[in-house]
Amino acid sequence: MAIITLTSDFGYKDPSTAMVKGTILCELPNANIVDISHDISPFHIMEAAYVIKNAYKSFPKGSIHIISVDTEQTYNKKQIALFMDGHYFICANNGVLSLVASEINPDKIVEINIQENKNPSFPTLDTFVKVACHIARGGSLDVIGKNVISLEKLKAHKPIIYEQEQKIIAHIIYIDNYGNLVTNVSKKLFNQIGKGQTFIIDARSNKFTKIVASYSEVIKFDTENSNLNESGKKIALFNTASYLELAIYKSNPKTVGGAASLFGLGLSDTVTIKFN
Amino acid sequence: MAIITLTSDFGYKDPSTAMVKGTILCELPNANIVDISHDISPFHIMEAAYVIKNAYKSFPKGSIHIISVDTEQTYNKKQIALFMDGHYFICANNGVLSLVASEINPDKIVEINIQENKNPSFPTLDTFVKVACHIARGGSLDVIGKNVISLEKLKAHKPIIYEQEQKIIAHIIYIDNYGNLVTNVSKKLFNQIGKGQTFIIDARSNKFTKIVASYSEVIKFDTENSNLNESGKKIALFNTASYLELAIYKSNPKTVGGAASLFGLGLSDTVTIKFN
Amino acid sequence: MAIITLTSDFGYKDPSTAMVKGTILCELPNANIVDISHDISPFHIMEAAYVIKNAYKSFPKGSIHIISVDTEQTYNKKQIALFMDGHYFICANNGVLSLVASEINPDKIVEINIQENKNPSFPTLDTFVKVACHIARGGSLDVIGKNVISLEKLKAHKPIIYEQEQKIIAHIIYIDNYGNLVTNVSKKLFNQIGKGQTFIIDARSNKFTKIVASYSEVIKFDTENSNLNESGKKIALFNTASYLELAIYKSNPKTVGGAASLFGLGLSDTVTIKFN
Repeated sequence: MAIITLTSDFGYKDPSTAMVKGTILCELPNANIVDISHDISPFHIMEAAYVIKNAYKSFPKGSIHIISVDTEQTYNKKQIALFMDGHYFICANNGVLSLVASEINPDKIVEINIQENKNPSFPTLDTFVKVACHIARGGSLDVIGKNVISLEKLKAHKPIIYEQEQKIIAHIIYIDNYGNLVTNVSKKLFNQIGKGQTFIIDARSNKFTKIVASYSEVIKFDTENSNLNESGKKIALFNTASYLELAIYKSNPKTVGGAASLFGLGLSDTVTIKFN
Repeated sequence: MAIITLTSDFGYKDPSTAMVKGTILCELPNANIVDISHDISPFHIMEAAYVIKNAYKSFPKGSIHIISVDTEQTYNKKQIALFMDGHYFICANNGVLSLVASEINPDKIVEINIQENKNPSFPTLDTFVKVACHIARGGSLDVIGKNVISLEKLKAHKPIIYEQEQKIIAHIIYIDNYGNLVTNVSKKLFNQIGKGQTFIIDARSNKFTKIVASYSEVIKFDTENSNLNESGKKIALFNTASYLELAIYKSNPKTVGGAASLFGLGLSDTVTIKFN
Repeated sequence: MAIITLTSDFGYKDPSTAMVKGTILCELPNANIVDISHDISPFHIMEAAYVIKNAYKSFPKGSIHIISVDTEQTYNKKQIALFMDGHYFICANNGVLSLVASEINPDKIVEINIQENKNPSFPTLDTFVKVACHIARGGSLDVIGKNVISLEKLKAHKPIIYEQEQKIIAHIIYIDNYGNLVTNVSKKLFNQIGKGQTFIIDARSNKFTKIVASYSEVIKFDTENSNLNESGKKIALFNTASYLELAIYKSNPKTVGGAASLFGLGLSDTVTIKFN
């Protein structure tokens, strides 16, 4: 039973997601359709890039991932299907695979040329579903398009490195459900530039000199109830995706606020890491 | 494996949707339950009508659609099950099928009379699930209720037509995840009244004289990067549902705003289409 | 096909839920994974307790329920797996099962000791999924941890009873999607203390002296259209979970407001029930 995942900016009210699922089920009654997220901010390619980068790897090899963010085919943005790291991806060539492709090279990329244009304003329904079902039935990528070589990359996903000064300028690439700030600095890069030296992470007026292994590591548990008033402590850690994350212990953006609101940092803002 | 879809105003936090799914799985362990939306605004029949109208058609014939919006049985609002366009629908007779039934006549409508009232404030769980499982097992509608003829219609779903003046007063019936405004004027009606003449669509102070085929058609792609600052362009198009939609290119209601906020138009507001 | 349900505060944008699902599907390709809710307020144990209490019972016996709220293992909060009322639960011992366990005694509780700590900040992925798949394959709880006896209880879930004065101080433990207020007073407790006498429920300046069976019972249906302007009527009823609920007829917290905003009551606030 093929697994087809869906990532989109359709939200959870519009009928779009159900239309995609219904259309898949008409072609493949046994498809196992799994939602990754439909709450990507409208047209927010970086957010989608972060979500798909983290999510796809957990699925079995051979899974097919439809990414429906900013999908309309234009002069300089083609629809593509690719095979990379044992997984299939169907999306627009708009940079949404930047984070995945920054670590792994695609085995094959084709520019889709089987568009039907029954619904020109909804290419996922027309084209992506058709491609996904073709792949799920064991079809080859060669049948649905011609080979292309270059995958569009987002500039924003790259931190700026000053090797001489032992400094990294990181960018906030994602803000999670708790308001925590994810930067574009991987553990690997951090260690490569930092070489195990001491460091200061500078996030506006907040400074971090220690990276912990888990959120609750910052909390003192001397007595049984000592953790009750530790909410609000500041944390720097490498998250499950191995990116440097700045967090607040037990934050809630809708009530007390999270790292984003409390540190005054948003998407694309910078954080400086200085070693020694 | 029967497909049962769910559309409701339960939201995504309350346990209601899971209770419905669990109850179905107790009766039908292999049921394929697909969420259409649980984010319908509370008691908003028109919103549910638009969502179900668009979504149901994508599913295989024989699918069973439970619509849980404003479902309590009252003096003048009965619970019904119907067969229409090859699909089954289970809902209250409150107008939620107005948009579907404006184009297609139901083959059969029954007023459900097998209520158990174990949970009188949650008829979906008590009654609709039971009806859905009955249908999924191949049961007949005759067993669960008596035939009725009339389906409640919402007045709001009908545009006002002035044939003499070649004018249509449209209403906004749905605002999508991007803030785009969907009117109740179908492509068919537009062409029937307009007869291919020129037109002006008047949405408050915004005027449209052209209908495009896709969102990105309004964007000029003379050079490779010319689309970067085209966000915010105004668009009129027939959407995937074939309704006239007024949109903003790459809008985001939570940040820069969408057509609804930028044009100052909300649900039930009017838009005038004048041909000449 | 094992049913594994997921309840979390991950929200609907972050990749966390998809990572959990993908990891389960790698181990158990035929698992039937059902979302209960991912919209629990961050770290809000009482909200999670209410949702899981209501939802789990609808699922078939033998279902496995992963509860991912405040899950990091600490000095005084261990990760546990338990068998109770024919269902399996995997969670932190943080009070999230207070409401379930206030009525039913667990048959078996084990403290999980098979943590791998590959992702110390994401124990659901590392540990809970592994435990769930072990149980789904028919594995015993004894293999994954050592027996424990005590289940952490939340104090907030207990109403204060003054038997002499025939009075109950109830707390608001949940606010639903319509803004309705759910108290921690069960129908059983209400009848036990009230013994069928008359009563006054005091919710700030709002008083209730009648409990109805369904929301629409408060509406007069003398003529066909009399219900049109009955929106906004105040209602006290026992909800599907058998808890006393204070509601507003056809409320919408995002527009006209719901019981919470209109009565000025929030989570943990009190409501007094006086019998005489």
